[in-house]
Amino acid sequence: MARIALGLEYDGTDFIGWQVQRAGRSVQAALQAAVSRVADQPTTIAGSGRTDAGVHALQQVAHFDTDVERSSRQWILGINSNLPEDVAVRWAHPVDSGFDARRSALFRRYHYAIVQSATRPAVVRRMSWWLREHLDCAAMTAAGISWLGENDFSAFRSAGCQSRTPMRRLISFSVFRRGHFVVVEFTANAFLQHMVRNLVGVLVEIGQGKAPVDWAREVLRSRDRTQGGVTAPPHGLSLVEVGYPARDGIPAAPEGLLGVS
Amino acid sequence: MARIALGLEYDGTDFIGWQVQRAGRSVQAALQAAVSRVADQPTTIAGSGRTDAGVHALQQVAHFDTDVERSSRQWILGINSNLPEDVAVRWAHPVDSGFDARRSALFRRYHYAIVQSATRPAVVRRMSWWLREHLDCAAMTAAGISWLGENDFSAFRSAGCQSRTPMRRLISFSVFRRGHFVVVEFTANAFLQHMVRNLVGVLVEIGQGKAPVDWAREVLRSRDRTQGGVTAPPHGLSLVEVGYPARDGIPAAPEGLLGVS
Repeated sequence: MARIALGLEYDGTDFIGWQVQRAGRSVQAALQAAVSRVADQPTTIAGSGRTDAGVHALQQVAHFDTDVERSSRQWILGINSNLPEDVAVRWAHPVDSGFDARRSALFRRYHYAIVQSATRPAVVRRMSWWLREHLDCAAMTAAGISWLGENDFSAFRSAGCQSRTPMRRLISFSVFRRGHFVVVEFTANAFLQHMVRNLVGVLVEIGQGKAPVDWAREVLRSRDRTQGGVTAPPHGLSLVEVGYPARDGIPAAPEGLLGVS
Repeated sequence: MARIALGLEYDGTDFIGWQVQRAGRSVQAALQAAVSRVADQPTTIAGSGRTDAGVHALQQVAHFDTDVERSSRQWILGINSNLPEDVAVRWAHPVDSGFDARRSALFRRYHYAIVQSATRPAVVRRMSWWLREHLDCAAMTAAGISWLGENDFSAFRSAGCQSRTPMRRLISFSVFRRGHFVVVEFTANAFLQHMVRNLVGVLVEIGQGKAPVDWAREVLRSRDRTQGGVTAPPHGLSLVEVGYPARDGIPAAPEGLLGVS
């Protein structure tokens, strides 16, 4: 029995999200079907975590166990030729049986891409949130750094979030402009459901001058979702890296494919 | 009667190209329908030139005549609310009656985006050509500069090209890397049908070491399409700028929305 780790990229537009559900097209189901075909045996795939419907990934990490012997190259080519065009394996890597895509992960990194322009974008509409109003990136940065560290993020979790604890450690945060995009980057040990999208909802109101910088900290301290802002739409969000201990030998995240990530 | 110029962006994936044809979804038809609705009278749109099925634009320029008085802002908002999501007006600008989107244009600039990677891309699959083999950008640059200036580009025109002359002036040419993309940029007074895609076909063979740098000039001199390479696929190609005399007051091209352009 061998355990194989996979690095995955997907365009989340036409998926119901990572996880298999009773109905709908999930990334996990597409991957399980492709791997099962290459392995010629039913194979279950475990991911580093779920992504919502419409959310993209430049590097999602997953693992599976198999009795079949294949080279990394054979896994990559075989799986990719059995996957639909909106999802692809970037690498495959044999790992120790103790490796677990979810439990071994040290951190997750997300990018949220905003297009700030007077008119709506056409080419990048599927991978950015369009906002007409000017954004004050300095105010957004000042607001977001107040969330750094180990905090109770109850005010930013969805009603349906199933995590046992609302505590998460926000490791890094930044806002930068790239081309016409404003990109908001979050790195945390893990995220609650809708957490990035809810954090971005608050940041945008601050960036547009509709709320003061201090409001970010106030919402956090309230631990009350009703005190927060809108939930930013999913299509601006991309999972760009999942980090593991060096001993696992997981490849580093690719350079952003979009210039936004 | 007023003449209005428009700056347009579109994702060409699901269009049959710029021009109205007997069947299929064209950018020109979508735009004519939207403008006719806002103007409340049938309106014909003239573009700076055609783009093929699958080819994108970050700045296509077009013009129309109308009896209706509207502010630029009203034209933009009205047209955009009547256009499908894969095409958008970026600006509208009243112009002199002597302005013609096609005949007044001094140059057109195109970007061709290539993803060079061992595995196929998922997120940017609709806007790049995926190639597995390494590309030698220096060789591609050396090859392409041999095409600069006024030349007979018969070897790079499609069989169906309706231009009266095969002479075109290639004004600038460059190859650069941006993130995971290799971008090939061409600026010319105008282009023949499939010219950029046929030029890229030759450059890629040279970049992959399958043909020497000198082959680029040999193909040009042959004036024979059968001497050339493959026609690169349309989805890597974007019209990024159409240039006009300063007196026309046409806005400069936007900064690339993709980081690829």
